[in-house]
Amino acid sequence: MFKIAIIGGGSSYTPELMEGIINRYNQLPVTELALVDTEQGRNKVNIIAELARRMLDKNALKQVKVSVHFSLDEAITGASFVLTQLRVGQLAARAADERLGLKYGLLGQETTGVGGFAKALRTIPVLLDVARKVEKLAPDAFIINFTNPAGIVTEAVSRYSNAKVIGVCNVPVNMHHMIADMLKAPWDEVNLRFAGLNHLVWVTQVTLRGQDVTDQVISSLCDGETLTMNNIKELPWSPAFLRALGAIPCPYHRYYWQTPEMLAEEQKKAKVGNEGTRAEQVMKVEAELFKLYANPQLAHKPEQLSFRGGAYYSEVAVEVISSIYNNSGKNLVVNCRNNGAIQGLPDSAVVETNCIVDAQGAHPIAFGSLPPLMNGLTQQIKAFEQLTIEAAVHGDRHQALLALLGNPLVGDITRAEALLDEVLTLNKAYLPQFSSH
Amino acid sequence: MFKIAIIGGGSSYTPELMEGIINRYNQLPVTELALVDTEQGRNKVNIIAELARRMLDKNALKQVKVSVHFSLDEAITGASFVLTQLRVGQLAARAADERLGLKYGLLGQETTGVGGFAKALRTIPVLLDVARKVEKLAPDAFIINFTNPAGIVTEAVSRYSNAKVIGVCNVPVNMHHMIADMLKAPWDEVNLRFAGLNHLVWVTQVTLRGQDVTDQVISSLCDGETLTMNNIKELPWSPAFLRALGAIPCPYHRYYWQTPEMLAEEQKKAKVGNEGTRAEQVMKVEAELFKLYANPQLAHKPEQLSFRGGAYYSEVAVEVISSIYNNSGKNLVVNCRNNGAIQGLPDSAVVETNCIVDAQGAHPIAFGSLPPLMNGLTQQIKAFEQLTIEAAVHGDRHQALLALLGNPLVGDITRAEALLDEVLTLNKAYLPQFSSH
Amino acid sequence: MFKIAIIGGGSSYTPELMEGIINRYNQLPVTELALVDTEQGRNKVNIIAELARRMLDKNALKQVKVSVHFSLDEAITGASFVLTQLRVGQLAARAADERLGLKYGLLGQETTGVGGFAKALRTIPVLLDVARKVEKLAPDAFIINFTNPAGIVTEAVSRYSNAKVIGVCNVPVNMHHMIADMLKAPWDEVNLRFAGLNHLVWVTQVTLRGQDVTDQVISSLCDGETLTMNNIKELPWSPAFLRALGAIPCPYHRYYWQTPEMLAEEQKKAKVGNEGTRAEQVMKVEAELFKLYANPQLAHKPEQLSFRGGAYYSEVAVEVISSIYNNSGKNLVVNCRNNGAIQGLPDSAVVETNCIVDAQGAHPIAFGSLPPLMNGLTQQIKAFEQLTIEAAVHGDRHQALLALLGNPLVGDITRAEALLDEVLTLNKAYLPQFSSH
Amino acid sequence: MFKIAIIGGGSSYTPELMEGIINRYNQLPVTELALVDTEQGRNKVNIIAELARRMLDKNALKQVKVSVHFSLDEAITGASFVLTQLRVGQLAARAADERLGLKYGLLGQETTGVGGFAKALRTIPVLLDVARKVEKLAPDAFIINFTNPAGIVTEAVSRYSNAKVIGVCNVPVNMHHMIADMLKAPWDEVNLRFAGLNHLVWVTQVTLRGQDVTDQVISSLCDGETLTMNNIKELPWSPAFLRALGAIPCPYHRYYWQTPEMLAEEQKKAKVGNEGTRAEQVMKVEAELFKLYANPQLAHKPEQLSFRGGAYYSEVAVEVISSIYNNSGKNLVVNCRNNGAIQGLPDSAVVETNCIVDAQGAHPIAFGSLPPLMNGLTQQIKAFEQLTIEAAVHGDRHQALLALLGNPLVGDITRAEALLDEVLTLNKAYLPQFSSH
Repeated sequence: MFKIAIIGGGSSYTPELMEGIINRYNQLPVTELALVDTEQGRNKVNIIAELARRMLDKNALKQVKVSVHFSLDEAITGASFVLTQLRVGQLAARAADERLGLKYGLLGQETTGVGGFAKALRTIPVLLDVARKVEKLAPDAFIINFTNPAGIVTEAVSRYSNAKVIGVCNVPVNMHHMIADMLKAPWDEVNLRFAGLNHLVWVTQVTLRGQDVTDQVISSLCDGETLTMNNIKELPWSPAFLRALGAIPCPYHRYYWQTPEMLAEEQKKAKVGNEGTRAEQVMKVEAELFKLYANPQLAHKPEQLSFRGGAYYSEVAVEVISSIYNNSGKNLVVNCRNNGAIQGLPDSAVVETNCIVDAQGAHPIAFGSLPPLMNGLTQQIKAFEQLTIEAAVHGDRHQALLALLGNPLVGDITRAEALLDEVLTLNKAYLPQFSSH
Repeated sequence: MFKIAIIGGGSSYTPELMEGIINRYNQLPVTELALVDTEQGRNKVNIIAELARRMLDKNALKQVKVSVHFSLDEAITGASFVLTQLRVGQLAARAADERLGLKYGLLGQETTGVGGFAKALRTIPVLLDVARKVEKLAPDAFIINFTNPAGIVTEAVSRYSNAKVIGVCNVPVNMHHMIADMLKAPWDEVNLRFAGLNHLVWVTQVTLRGQDVTDQVISSLCDGETLTMNNIKELPWSPAFLRALGAIPCPYHRYYWQTPEMLAEEQKKAKVGNEGTRAEQVMKVEAELFKLYANPQLAHKPEQLSFRGGAYYSEVAVEVISSIYNNSGKNLVVNCRNNGAIQGLPDSAVVETNCIVDAQGAHPIAFGSLPPLMNGLTQQIKAFEQLTIEAAVHGDRHQALLALLGNPLVGDITRAEALLDEVLTLNKAYLPQFSSH
Repeated sequence: MFKIAIIGGGSSYTPELMEGIINRYNQLPVTELALVDTEQGRNKVNIIAELARRMLDKNALKQVKVSVHFSLDEAITGASFVLTQLRVGQLAARAADERLGLKYGLLGQETTGVGGFAKALRTIPVLLDVARKVEKLAPDAFIINFTNPAGIVTEAVSRYSNAKVIGVCNVPVNMHHMIADMLKAPWDEVNLRFAGLNHLVWVTQVTLRGQDVTDQVISSLCDGETLTMNNIKELPWSPAFLRALGAIPCPYHRYYWQTPEMLAEEQKKAKVGNEGTRAEQVMKVEAELFKLYANPQLAHKPEQLSFRGGAYYSEVAVEVISSIYNNSGKNLVVNCRNNGAIQGLPDSAVVETNCIVDAQGAHPIAFGSLPPLMNGLTQQIKAFEQLTIEAAVHGDRHQALLALLGNPLVGDITRAEALLDEVLTLNKAYLPQFSSH
Repeated sequence: MFKIAIIGGGSSYTPELMEGIINRYNQLPVTELALVDTEQGRNKVNIIAELARRMLDKNALKQVKVSVHFSLDEAITGASFVLTQLRVGQLAARAADERLGLKYGLLGQETTGVGGFAKALRTIPVLLDVARKVEKLAPDAFIINFTNPAGIVTEAVSRYSNAKVIGVCNVPVNMHHMIADMLKAPWDEVNLRFAGLNHLVWVTQVTLRGQDVTDQVISSLCDGETLTMNNIKELPWSPAFLRALGAIPCPYHRYYWQTPEMLAEEQKKAKVGNEGTRAEQVMKVEAELFKLYANPQLAHKPEQLSFRGGAYYSEVAVEVISSIYNNSGKNLVVNCRNNGAIQGLPDSAVVETNCIVDAQGAHPIAFGSLPPLMNGLTQQIKAFEQLTIEAAVHGDRHQALLALLGNPLVGDITRAEALLDEVLTLNKAYLPQFSSH
């Protein structure tokens, strides 16, 4: 028996994951996929379950059971892996976060700034609830967390539960493919050394068949090649900056180093009549997707899902699950306890870096120290993350205010205080931990 | 023989220092004060020397020699202490830094932001030159550095020379007096625990006759008492912020946490017809002061010097010198090598914290870890400082750009690149280290 | 009201402490000395209490109350300081430890080797019981621990209770006086820098009126001056060793570096007809002392107490208590949490080093890294201490075996296993924590 | 062109290496094997070169060139790998070390105690000379160091040259095979987690197809299975010790934990008429081996080589070389810079632990902290290693004496001083660095 529970099974991403599992069924002989969702998501999860069924059948995998649950306990019991891809408050809450940021002239993306903060407050208690059930009902299972802000959520689970947890993100794998493309080389001949935090990661070395080609990649990026992702605006990096840095920042670094341009772009999109904030765009895409998914003729992942922004998500998820299940010891980039790998961060800090992944979990490769600029930003964001976790777990307004202040996309006290009030008011339904204080 | 060399002897602060030395002559039986300045400063240093002479004579200290030098070697040879309070490019360069910041909508104060950066580039090579002469001509002497940005300059000397160096600043002693006043207690019954960097320091504990009264002080600050200094705008701290922080930030923290308000204020002052930037105000004050100093009737520190902003500077300087000279082992707040005192910062980082000061130098008391928000900002600013030092010592444009980016008062790449170009152009005369690159 | 509770009040050392308190009454205006002992110690504690009374009366301190208690709760309630100088199993248990070591050809001194191990197992649970009562009945009180092995016991209390605790030892103060004598200088003109663990401490620098005279002291030691204490054999250090080390080891280092000679000496003493082991000698001294103490004419500390080995114990104890009580901030050498002061040891490790002692406790001065040889031995002994604490607290035979193996005076598995069996059997009455396992 | 230089090519181990290279020629298409030796070794290296030629020819690898050199420069120029397996002073010097130890009642094995110390003093200057030639003549080459004491020598090269260096040892691979045999499992289904120093390593976890079976392995060892190597006496571990430790020590730990038994055994062997010390036995084996090697009919590694003690040496060497050459990223246990992998040891310390080995070198997987007993011993031995390296590089008698004292197999000052005198006298010819002092 090999059961995978998918918390947030009604997500529009699930078909992507299905495709990954189907393609690697020889490595991952799953016997049951248990889709869990809330009552409000009943319609969606049923659509997904039926599509999953059709996809499996079409691929001659009738033996794989697809079950739908509205009880966590039921789904988690007996699972080998628990995938968490839930969204507390749905996209509406995310859109509210983004609009709140813009109201204050700030970027409020779902993993950083006021958006990441608000999402973490909503999400952490729910994930900890999942983790406590896993401890009890499937103590050997690994939680594979996709839920954003993935680094923060993974650290919360890692520090406040005994469940085994690994956070995954598609940014590193996207960068890997893009850089391989730039080098016109097959991606498995290219190795990247990653260090940092989720959505705050750098590639400090690129090798091609073992030879260091970092400078060559940086030169290409300076010459106009771009390194970006669907959901991040394609603003090229300054050549002087890249050469001075000597490393390749992930696209999300644009929020910190190109703040005015990024903000202007977001403000423009958010104007009436334009495409809307990221969440608002995604809501439209999702509506389209579910219409497609519901079509009883459809038995494969539709191409339109690629607009959703999760390219390679299933690749990285299935790689991680397979490397654990098959004890492969592959070198993968995931989010896990630092354990001394990046110096200057606590052992308990969750970092995003190259790990050996085997049946015992993810083991980061010792990285040493980050250069000063990278260390400075990483420490600052890690402080934001730690404070956010404390605020979310304990419903502590003091820590919440400090968390907002610690994020460089928020900055000053006047705005931080106003934002905190609005976040707590807007999300009252999702933040019971703050009610008793 | 007990000689003190004062590099930048023509500074308007020197009478303050004279007063301190005169008042503590029983602890510090100085035999010679060697004032050094550049040829351009000949007039000023002569005025100061004559005033110093008159002050000594009036206090029946005829035996103390006052000498004037335009050669470092001459002044340093045989000195027990070398005080550095020089200003490369004079106040004009500082004013240019401030105006440059404002042009880009930024705060550019002389210890942080683009101002601190530019001043460090100009100053570090000159201080290293002094340090190398001290190594050779007065190897047992202590350099007591007052030159801003004091933390950065002290770290540069500490890392790039073998001279003994301690950095001093009047912020901690000002906070000490103000908090004692708030508590209506004599200042020697109040103890403060400081940790952080120069102009980025926090008081993490206040005790009154040994009892912890930190919360009481925070409450007073929340109730409207203010904690500020002449040269920093009196913007009260938000009570919610102070209570969440549980510590007392030094006034310079306002630059980071109250940025929009501080910037608005600076912009207002800088408008034509208003009082001008800080350097511009100081220039006026200095012109007044030197007129007073030149008066052959004047034989004491004039009251107007208090507007200059250096209250207690002589107190802290004389305390440090006396504690070394007399091997007193006093608990003083100075800038010195971290040596593990604040966890998470390198041993070689210069920090501002409570130290035991004796004939062997300054020995920081182990502090442990800073709480997350403080650690995040401290790490970020330390990265800025390290990068600035590397840029200044090696004339390295790459490090210079990263330094600017690392400072939270600069922020984004577009502005950082433009600022760097302007800084290097405006300061060409003072930055030979960048010419050969 | 200023009450000091003395746990183990019937100790022969108490008159030493009384003398210290009487001599510094102006600094320490004690109102009550509460002597606590067990029922078995009733006779002794009464003798001590009466002597204390006579000493106070003779010094016109009738107002100081001396009370005797056989209940911890009663004595601790309302105390400002709780001094712990108890001896579980009395000197008989210590003598048995020493004989056990010798049976196996090993040194088994009361702070290290099998002796220190056995004494720690007996003592830690009792001290933790005291600490828990202090937490409840006198939460602001400081425990001043004299009980050996002082470093281990202090760390156990520091890690397993919330009581404030400082460990004191007379070795540093003895070294201070001896070195001052060697330099023919008043001791307050000599400063020593100490780092290490209790009974494993080094002086890494000696200054005389601020000047470094470490080499001069080492040369004196090489020329035949000796540095030792009453209760440690006067075996001169090898000049080559001292010069190579560049530091001054405390006398207890002889156990580790002159093991064969020290063992031969102990074996000789232990032979029938000779003076006996240290504990056996002390038993004789104590019998004599109590005879003297019981003399109703005696109203001062008798000279014979100096043979007992605790010279300066009262000096250091009274200094520490006074520096806390008067918030003096003196630089004293005590045992407290490392908090990063000595690099490479955990923050929670108790170390012996120079501390600023004030009303908030003991604050170690940052020391940096120990040189390799010192670090190697310190880490090894700290491992022994940590394992001993775990064994003592949890009654864990596994940790107990590893602790014995970790001590370089025990060494091999065969002996360690045999020793452990004997220790547990001989001390069965004092080790309830091992019974349930 | 793919050239491997073998420094100490005349070693009796070379045929083992040849076999490894031949068996994996498909992975390692070597074009030249350059054997280097000293003039005194001319005869031996010629015998080896001819045997190598015959082995290659027999395996249809005529295209692989075998060259013999008595000049390092010639051999190193153009090499991709430089294998170092030299022995300064030959086995005679090693035998003298062993006899010297026994004279003082001590174990003096070639990697620890007085033997390891003496061998390091002889070897380090020669290896540093090799490293400096590699820096100049083959800057991209990796030095693969087999020379004992492998950990110490590798750290010396790593710290005092810029050459890339990895140390290899057959202990981990031997343990891997033995434990797999105990589990009756193919060795590639068994994973071991190693941490420690060379010849001081522990297996802290064993997994079988991903499942933790550490306790099962420990139970087997307790039930009489033994874990040892040809050249270490088969003294079973105490079950109580193993269970308390919860880890599997490498056989060389017997020197530290079973010292009396090991010493008795060595003393017995060393008695006239018995088999002699390890070096003396190896001398006989080597004489035999070279007789066999010289036989022009022999074209394979003779079975008798297995008595020499280097089982799997070629396996680990060829694995490491291949993983670098082919950029495989295999998880191998080698000796390299710690870089934070084992907490509490300096970054520059060479450790033995699981590493990812690829074209960029060996990258240790973050291990975290060693448990106390392991940490204590590791720190102590690392201190010995650091002091030995300083002594060897600088010819510093002070550091040399401290090094000997730091090794737990030497211990007290009297013996350490006498041993140092004898080591320096006996090895005068090999220790020019000590002559000028």
